[in-house]
Amino acid sequence: MMSILRRLLIGKPLHNNEIAHERLPKWKALSIFSSDALSSVAYGPEQIMLTLVAIPGLIAYGYMAPVALSILLLLAIVALSYVQVAKANPGGGGAYAIAKKNLGELPALVAAGSVFADYVLTAAVSVSAGTAAITSAFPMLIGNEVSIDLAVLFVILMVVNLRGVRESSNAFVIPTYAFLFGIICLISAGVYQSFTQSSYLIHPAAFAKQPLDWAVIFLILRAFANGCSSMTGVEAIADSVPMFNAPESRNATITTYWMAGILGVMFTGITFLIMHYHIVPVPEVTALSQLAELVFGRNSVYLYIQITTMLILYLAANTAYNGLPILLSIVAKDGYMPRYLATRGERLTYSNGIILLTVAAAILIVVYHGQIDHLISLYAIGVFVSFTIAQTSMIVHWRREKGSGWHVRAWLNGIGALTTGLVVIIITATKFSHGAWIILLFIPFIIYIFKKIRSHYDSIAQQLSVPPEFLAAERTSAAVKGKHIVIVPVSTPTRVVFETLKYAKVIGDNVLAVHVASETASEEKVRQKWNGWNLGVELVVLHSPYRLLMNPLIDYIEKIDQYKNPNDYITVVIPEFETKRWWHRLLHNQTGWILRTSLILKKNIIVTTVPYHLKE
Amino acid sequence: MMSILRRLLIGKPLHNNEIAHERLPKWKALSIFSSDALSSVAYGPEQIMLTLVAIPGLIAYGYMAPVALSILLLLAIVALSYVQVAKANPGGGGAYAIAKKNLGELPALVAAGSVFADYVLTAAVSVSAGTAAITSAFPMLIGNEVSIDLAVLFVILMVVNLRGVRESSNAFVIPTYAFLFGIICLISAGVYQSFTQSSYLIHPAAFAKQPLDWAVIFLILRAFANGCSSMTGVEAIADSVPMFNAPESRNATITTYWMAGILGVMFTGITFLIMHYHIVPVPEVTALSQLAELVFGRNSVYLYIQITTMLILYLAANTAYNGLPILLSIVAKDGYMPRYLATRGERLTYSNGIILLTVAAAILIVVYHGQIDHLISLYAIGVFVSFTIAQTSMIVHWRREKGSGWHVRAWLNGIGALTTGLVVIIITATKFSHGAWIILLFIPFIIYIFKKIRSHYDSIAQQLSVPPEFLAAERTSAAVKGKHIVIVPVSTPTRVVFETLKYAKVIGDNVLAVHVASETASEEKVRQKWNGWNLGVELVVLHSPYRLLMNPLIDYIEKIDQYKNPNDYITVVIPEFETKRWWHRLLHNQTGWILRTSLILKKNIIVTTVPYHLKE
Repeated sequence: MMSILRRLLIGKPLHNNEIAHERLPKWKALSIFSSDALSSVAYGPEQIMLTLVAIPGLIAYGYMAPVALSILLLLAIVALSYVQVAKANPGGGGAYAIAKKNLGELPALVAAGSVFADYVLTAAVSVSAGTAAITSAFPMLIGNEVSIDLAVLFVILMVVNLRGVRESSNAFVIPTYAFLFGIICLISAGVYQSFTQSSYLIHPAAFAKQPLDWAVIFLILRAFANGCSSMTGVEAIADSVPMFNAPESRNATITTYWMAGILGVMFTGITFLIMHYHIVPVPEVTALSQLAELVFGRNSVYLYIQITTMLILYLAANTAYNGLPILLSIVAKDGYMPRYLATRGERLTYSNGIILLTVAAAILIVVYHGQIDHLISLYAIGVFVSFTIAQTSMIVHWRREKGSGWHVRAWLNGIGALTTGLVVIIITATKFSHGAWIILLFIPFIIYIFKKIRSHYDSIAQQLSVPPEFLAAERTSAAVKGKHIVIVPVSTPTRVVFETLKYAKVIGDNVLAVHVASETASEEKVRQKWNGWNLGVELVVLHSPYRLLMNPLIDYIEKIDQYKNPNDYITVVIPEFETKRWWHRLLHNQTGWILRTSLILKKNIIVTTVPYHLKE
Repeated sequence: MMSILRRLLIGKPLHNNEIAHERLPKWKALSIFSSDALSSVAYGPEQIMLTLVAIPGLIAYGYMAPVALSILLLLAIVALSYVQVAKANPGGGGAYAIAKKNLGELPALVAAGSVFADYVLTAAVSVSAGTAAITSAFPMLIGNEVSIDLAVLFVILMVVNLRGVRESSNAFVIPTYAFLFGIICLISAGVYQSFTQSSYLIHPAAFAKQPLDWAVIFLILRAFANGCSSMTGVEAIADSVPMFNAPESRNATITTYWMAGILGVMFTGITFLIMHYHIVPVPEVTALSQLAELVFGRNSVYLYIQITTMLILYLAANTAYNGLPILLSIVAKDGYMPRYLATRGERLTYSNGIILLTVAAAILIVVYHGQIDHLISLYAIGVFVSFTIAQTSMIVHWRREKGSGWHVRAWLNGIGALTTGLVVIIITATKFSHGAWIILLFIPFIIYIFKKIRSHYDSIAQQLSVPPEFLAAERTSAAVKGKHIVIVPVSTPTRVVFETLKYAKVIGDNVLAVHVASETASEEKVRQKWNGWNLGVELVVLHSPYRLLMNPLIDYIEKIDQYKNPNDYITVVIPEFETKRWWHRLLHNQTGWILRTSLILKKNIIVTTVPYHLKE
């Protein structure tokens, strides 16, 4: 049953040879790697606006333009820095790999922890924002956001990724360009209207800026911090250089410029329109939906924009599925995460990582009721921490390489590192009480876990190596062969016990049958039957007036263990019958299973099960 | 951890010798065995009233008196019949035991199934009614009834009964007499007021009876059926004759008369007062609470009555805990229920039966939201079915014994059987659509289960007997000893594999190491290390390009199984290491466990685990 369901959902196993190594042209790579970055214009400008108008009496709507401009500047710096990364790392690899090579273990783990947190948040934020786009258009869906989010996560993203998808699939290309087209239309139409219909023009008097006191500055910085969520995903291209057509670095560089340019234009355009139409928060309706409705009315163009927005946002969530499982597999191969995160499942995907990501994102969505503004508070810190670490690694890299013009490159990355480091401080300071502290606790915590896991694996590896003298002794048979004591627990002498005894006599010469008796009557019955069998095996009877079964048996086995020679083996052979149907097992006690488990887990005793399969 | 909690809650194990065989004086026995019967006056008369006023336009309040009188008559007949049972069965035992002796298997199983259903309902109804008594007094508890019910079931009744209580404990004696005292006061005061304060007197004109058409007759019969719930528990004394001081039968007889008398007086009194005060249903307030408030006002006397009512009702639920686990153990000893219901736990109680009863009653309470009038619809059928069977058994008994005056006794029981059988028909007919059909489906269903279980045990017993020629062959060593093939699955050659190999060589001569390789690189590594070990054991490499581990291994083992001689043994020895802390296990895959389980459950292969305990 389960396995049929599994086949239907996940598909048949794939052969090792089927790992695809496809190269992508620039136009395809742009759409595939930038859905995360580009889609963030659906919530980034809105978050700036929300923050600036959030506090009544302290509304700083007029400061939107400078905040947006700073973010554009930051985008330029980050894009330029990542062009350097793409040039220096033709093999690809994210902040963890770069930091490990250039800075060492701890910075690499900080990067891994930060990126881990941010991938999970990318999935949670993007799915929530995608759902918000569609509930804005169809208000009858309001109230079911969390259910829709979870359905998208588990039914679509998890299943599709467990099946495995080619990254080159057109399913990724079409929504991105469709979204681009829609947003460009929206911006063009909106800007055109803003110049032809004077009524909506920004009126300087209406937007008088608040005087700049400390509270307003803090608000502006927080708006900036929230706006930085638009920048997540900018690193995706530089992380994936080997996926490009040759010359890889050059193509990746050009694509990064393109992506940054498009993101900049869209970000500027939407921010301008939000200011122009003086969009303010409306419950259950996104700012982009308000804009599209004001510009086009509630018609099919509006619907087109909402649906493509939803699609690109769900795609953006999918980038977390492309990124996190691979990151986890690299970290797991280095021994910082459980090994099974490093192995590909039957469909060649990193199944365990995919499931982990889905569950983590689902928990975030449930805890925060799928509300984007709350999730945004946790977001972006991780990305900027990893930006800072990656840029710092690049400085070290250029200093080591000392190629032509390395000074300029090092300076460029230095500026990148400084700027992104500053952004980390701004985000931390302005969003600390809003949730940033969770991430700041999470990163050291996950590093502690990483190190704990690594030290566990190291200690295991060391304990599991075979001392050469042991091998030598075994080879020459110089080791003294000890006795082999075989213990057969007997509850009633049945066919199962009989078969077990036969086997016990095959594997050892010292066979002991042990019966635990809690009543004299039943003890006598067992003894009589045993003597009737007369198979030459001694029956030891243990008395248990407290009706406990396991304890006397385990005590007895322990006592034998104490008095045996170090080279002797003790094997407990458990007679067990397997019923024909699983539910028949409910009618029998599970003594065999309990005994086996407690002996294996606690004692240094060898446990054998001789199963006897009932026919009816 | 778990075991400390267990000790705290349940207490230390008890010795076999500590089974108590105490004898009870009549006054103590009365309070202990009649809490179920006596407490039912807290809901019985109310149920008659509820039914008679339930249908607007068809209110038949005026018929309460005849209904109550019929129930009194029925009570007298049932009590007299059970006096006969007490006389004839000095060894005690319920309807199941009597029917098995006199009527055979099927009637006995019908009785067992009916009593089973009714014990569960006793627990559910009594707990719900006890909670209703206390929420009537403290309305702020309203809305939490189900939670209180479940807390009483799991935290009090289950834990106390798992610890085990002496039935003779004063905890059972005091509440019963306290309740009796309170109800007698209530009735005396109420009757006194009814004669002194004319305003409340029953006024014949106000209660004019409806003309007797079929609908009214049906309603009256249903009221009678619901009132019969007061009679559950009347059999308890006759079932427990051996608990009485000598002369047991005589004392049990006298106590039955007393109990029936007291029950009759209380039933009559409360019904009279309900009619006198013209009590009608009030949501969330029981009729008894209304009466107590009208007679005494909301003072401490009122509270006394509510609290003692709650206590005796919870005690009545406890009688199910005294009865059902013992019944189940008897039925299980006869092979109709899983064997583990027949064994006493470490505290000498039938732990599994206690847990089963608690869970079943909890399910009923949750499904019916703890509402007594809904639960009552299921109630009483089972008891009257078992009454009928017990009385019928007695007729057979007297005919067999033919002692002095057996004709009279047989006639008495015959009248009992006829009357209670008639009541079964009335209850079924009038409450069929209200839930009685559930019980009428349940009884055949559980009988089917009883028989299925019995036939499974019979078939097992037959399959597990050892043919004498097998024993003879084994004794003379005439059986041909086959080869012993030992298979060791190897993932990486570690210390664990090394120790396992050493053991494998001790138990058999044909040792095969098997490695499943999904990548050529890792295969080469394993092969090299193996050759370096050079222990004289062949390494078989199975290729698995689909990265499946289990399937190739199991296929290989199956193939060996096919080609071996019938007398050969195949043992799979699984190298496994046990981590020091249980959560370390999360970091390793559970291949060993999965392999062991799938081999034991599905194949006729012997599985051995050589555990290697890590020190760190």
